[in-house]
This record gives sequence, C-alpha cells and structure tokens, in this order.
Amino acid sequence: MRFSRLRLLKEVLAFATTVLFFTAVAGAQSDPLPSWNDGPTKQAIVDFIQKTTDKSSPTFVAQEERIATFDQDGTLWVEHPIYTQVLYCLDRVPTVVKERPDLAKVEPFNTVLSGDREAIAKLSMDDLFKILAATLTGMSVDKFNAEAKKWLESAMDPRWKQPYTKLTYLPMIELLKYLRANGYRTYIVTGGGQDFVRAYSEEVYGIPPEQVVGTMSGTKYGYDKEGKPFLTKEPELLLNDNNAGKPEGIHLMIGRRPCAAFGNSTGDRQMLEYTKAGDGARLAMLVFHDDAKREYAYGPAQGLPDTKIGTFTQELYDEAKRNGWIVISMKNDWNRIFAFEN
Amino acid sequence: MRFSRLRLLKEVLAFATTVLFFTAVAGAQSDPLPSWNDGPTKQAIVDFIQKTTDKSSPTFVAQEERIATFDQDGTLWVEHPIYTQVLYCLDRVPTVVKERPDLAKVEPFNTVLSGDREAIAKLSMDDLFKILAATLTGMSVDKFNAEAKKWLESAMDPRWKQPYTKLTYLPMIELLKYLRANGYRTYIVTGGGQDFVRAYSEEVYGIPPEQVVGTMSGTKYGYDKEGKPFLTKEPELLLNDNNAGKPEGIHLMIGRRPCAAFGNSTGDRQMLEYTKAGDGARLAMLVFHDDAKREYAYGPAQGLPDTKIGTFTQELYDEAKRNGWIVISMKNDWNRIFAFEN
Repeated sequence: MRFSRLRLLKEVLAFATTVLFFTAVAGAQSDPLPSWNDGPTKQAIVDFIQKTTDKSSPTFVAQEERIATFDQDGTLWVEHPIYTQVLYCLDRVPTVVKERPDLAKVEPFNTVLSGDREAIAKLSMDDLFKILAATLTGMSVDKFNAEAKKWLESAMDPRWKQPYTKLTYLPMIELLKYLRANGYRTYIVTGGGQDFVRAYSEEVYGIPPEQVVGTMSGTKYGYDKEGKPFLTKEPELLLNDNNAGKPEGIHLMIGRRPCAAFGNSTGDRQMLEYTKAGDGARLAMLVFHDDAKREYAYGPAQGLPDTKIGTFTQELYDEAKRNGWIVISMKNDWNRIFAFEN
Repeated sequence: MRFSRLRLLKEVLAFATTVLFFTAVAGAQSDPLPSWNDGPTKQAIVDFIQKTTDKSSPTFVAQEERIATFDQDGTLWVEHPIYTQVLYCLDRVPTVVKERPDLAKVEPFNTVLSGDREAIAKLSMDDLFKILAATLTGMSVDKFNAEAKKWLESAMDPRWKQPYTKLTYLPMIELLKYLRANGYRTYIVTGGGQDFVRAYSEEVYGIPPEQVVGTMSGTKYGYDKEGKPFLTKEPELLLNDNNAGKPEGIHLMIGRRPCAAFGNSTGDRQMLEYTKAGDGARLAMLVFHDDAKREYAYGPAQGLPDTKIGTFTQELYDEAKRNGWIVISMKNDWNRIFAFEN
C-alpha cells in the first residue's frame, strides 16, 4: 500500500514536472521579446507581425516582400561617446603613418598621434573625413576585413569593460530574431562604412554581408605580382548612406521598400518616411535614449542634452508622434539593455 | 480460380505501375539538367555541385557562402541582333520627345524618330548613351518600373515571334534551378541597367530584385505635392557593371566572392577571374554562341563572325582553355535552346 502510494506520488510528480516543463517551453515561445516590458510599444511590434504574416489578414505581406531595415549606431548598439568606427580609424592612424611617414607632420594626423584627447575631440568633420579616407582606403578588401576583425577582437569599451561587439541592445537582438522567425529579412542600413560593418554583422547580428547597406566607397580591380586579381578600397564616395541617402541606398541595394524600419536619430528620418509611405501595415520605430543610468540620455528632444552624436531633435519627436512612428523609451520599454548584464 | 488470377493480374499491374511511376520520378530527379547533352560540360556542373555540397567533400562550402553569378545578355537570354534594353530605349524616344519637344530636332533623337533603320544602326556609343540617359532617367522609380513592365508584356521579337522574356535559354534556367535546389543563391551580374533587369528578373528567372547587380545610376529622394516621398532616377552613373566593374559591383552588392560564375563575352572576363581566384572548388563557364541554325553564331573566336555585341575573342577562348574555364558549346552541349520549342 505504501509502495503503491509512493509510486502514485512519483507518477504525479513526474506528470507535474512534465506539465511544468511544457508550460515553461510554451511560455518561452509565447514571448519572443522577453526584454521588452509589456505596453503599447511591445504590443505594436506583435500586432505588426500578426497583421503582415497571418494569411487571413487584409494587410498580409508575401514572404519575399518582408523586409525590415535597421540603423546601426544608437539603434542596435551603443554610439556614445564616439562611434566605434571612428575609434577604429583613430587607432589605425599610427599604422598608416608608419606606411606613409609624410602624414606624421600634417594635420589632423599629428593631433591624433599626439594623443591629446581634448584636441582630438575638437577635430572638425573635415579632419575626420581625412582620417577616415586615409585609414579605410588604399588597401585590399581582404586586408581591410582581416584588420577590422582583429581590432574588434581586442578593443574594449572603457565604461562596460566589454568588446564593442558586446554593446548591442538585447531587446533589438530579440526583435531581429523575432522578425526573422516570421519570414522577414533583416537589413542594416547605416551611415557607417559598409565594409566595416560587414566585418562583424554576421557574427554579431546574424546579418550577412549582402544585407548590409552602408556608406559606400568604390573599389578598384587589379592584379598582384603573381597575376592574382584583388580589389583595392578607393577613397571615391559612391553613396553617403545617411538622411536621404538611406532610402536611396535601400533602392540601390534591395530594390524594394521596407515594411518596417528602425532608427534613432534625424539621419533615419527619410528611411522611416519612405517605409511608412508604402501601402498596408507599416512599422516605424525610433529608439529614444532616455536612460542615463543604464546607458545614456540625449536628445535634445524632451529637454535632454544635445550630444551631437545621434541627434534626436524635438522636431523629429513631434514628427514621430504626428505620423504614428513609435518612440521606444529605453528607460520604460526595455527591462534589460545588454545580454552581459543579468 | 479465374477471379483470383484476375485479382493477381490487377495487383501485379498496380505494383508495376507504382514501380514505373517511382522510377520515372526518380529518373526525373536524377537528371536536373535534361536540356544538357551528356559530356564533360554537363559533368563539370554535376561534379561542382557534388564537391561543394557533400559534407564529406574537402571542398564543401557552407550554405551562406554558396553564391553563383550570371551575366544576363547572351548568357541567360538572347542578345542579338540588339540588346533588349536598347530596343526599349529606342521605343521610348517618342514618349520622351512628347514630354520634351526640344529634343525632336536634336541628334540622336531626330534619327531615332525618322525610323531609318540603317541610320539608327550606325549611331555611335555616345549617341546611345544620350538615348539611355534621356529614356531611363528623370522619372520616379515606380513609374519607370511600371513602364518597363508594360513594354515587356507587348514587345515581340521578330525572329521567334515571342515576347523577349521568352527568349531565355532553357538549359540555363535548369542550371539556375539546379543551383538553387542545392542551396546556392543565384545573382544576375549584368552590364544592363539594374532597375531595368529588376523589372522582370523575379518573374523570368526567379531572381529577386536584391539579387540583381547591374549598371547602377543614382536616385534622388524628394516629395510630391502631397508631401509623399518618392525616388527619382538620376542620370548620375555610380558603377558601370562591365569588365572590371563586375567584380567591383559584386563586392558592393554581395560582399562575398562567388563560387561559380557564368558569362559569354569579354565583359565577363574579370568576373570569372575573380571567381576562380578563390580557394576550393570553383566553376567558371562561358556560353559560346556557335549555333547559327538554332540561335546565332558569333565570336570572333574560332573563326566565327565578329558581330560587336557579346564579343568572344580568340584571346578569351584561349584564356578559358588555359585556366580551366569551361566553354559551353551551344551547338553541342545543349539539346534544346528555348522552352517554347519542342
């Protein structure tokens, strides 16, 4: 009798464990966005997926048309206090000067070599473009790729003591995966250099090189001493993938209008406008950095400080509210920011 | 007894029918390239697929790296006696002149309007570029797309009395499908206008707009009277996707080196070189138009006439033989050319 009860108990326990297990699994499956707090922002994403992937929906979208575009800096990962790509270029200056010693005495290279942080912070946009051109071009595509990857493996962000590639926003990574699980192809559409972002996009975001639309410069086909062909990165600018350049870059590289677009600054305005101007259900979202404690707070919308990088003006904020674009409050909509934090 | 025999006979017949059916299905599956004659050319394709998709092969290629690029004119469809896109532009001249009457008295537009075929055939490349610029730009991307589609539905090739979109080579369509069935992503890499080819690539080849790399011109973002954004096609040339422009365009749009490349003229040389210069198993093929009866015969390689369109020089022929590129003889390697012919 005891044995039988014990056995019954065991079986009940086993059954309960099984039920709990499957409930947990089903629970996990039912929330693809666990780092997003419940509320209208998260609901808008879930509704958009339902409206565009449910065959009975009047705004159903065929799978081949399911395109979602994401700005990178400030939308998928941290852009403050300075763009990662600019850090990379500054770090590369000594190497470039070793190969071209004539640059050592010329501005802005001598300022960068001086290591004077205040002076470096004051460099003009023109100076910055000179540095970008000198450090990102003039080498083979393969060499560029290998050097960018090497730098990304070792460089560390001083605030979080993490490689820059770990400073991605967990809620946005969940969103990328959620979209892809629903047949969307996810693209990066960034003002950053296309080849620089391609060096890590597949590993970091699961976004392959052919789905990275960035600021594009030319390459030049040629042959090495053994007659083996290779491509050299040229300083010639083909497309500045910012502002109006974003929809232009999208047309050039994708040839379709996105159904959903995500950004965080005035540089993304045209991409969001272009996306929303299409027929049917459209989703346009802007990440608003209002979380000084867990990340950064900047605008100048809503009275936040204007930090010049990733500018989110009050005008953009008002346009978003007027046009049904959704402003994501980092502080209120996200319960976690980074995967490395528990 | 008779009943039983009859029943046995029926069962045997049913079984035999089943066997025949499955044999037929298996037979169809075992030859994905029925329009290709057996021989070393067809075998090279089958071997390449085996070498790059069999996990036990030392030259196995991960699915994300499986990229195959195809020139269009003369490789996937007929390019003689004149490129389809040029025909389209010539046909559009009256419409353009209606909108811009000042062009009617200016060369080369007055020659085109005269309808004098001999004079039109003698127009220079410079004249042709003027016509292309005037007929392919200055309108919205959506309008361009709609007009190109409309023309393609009604225009007829005079020799075969078929729409131009039916003049695709059946063996190449089989090859596209065979590659895709084996995890390859198939791209068009064409000297033709990117947007023109995109207007039909999905329907005709199953190749979506984002997998069309062509000669690229800029677009300009703007707003209509209602404030709705749209893109206008600009005459500014971003990349001439011919010769060295092909590997450059591949890097820009795909960011990976193809494993297999297919062309038919000197304009494809660099794409094939670039493809073959990668590691592992590579496939480079050139369609050689040596079939005057069923299609056209031109070179000037192997003593065929030089028709100036799709030039296949003896030098290219020799380079192919030297480097292990495979020359497809239309006459000997293909048992059918077009799907509309039985």
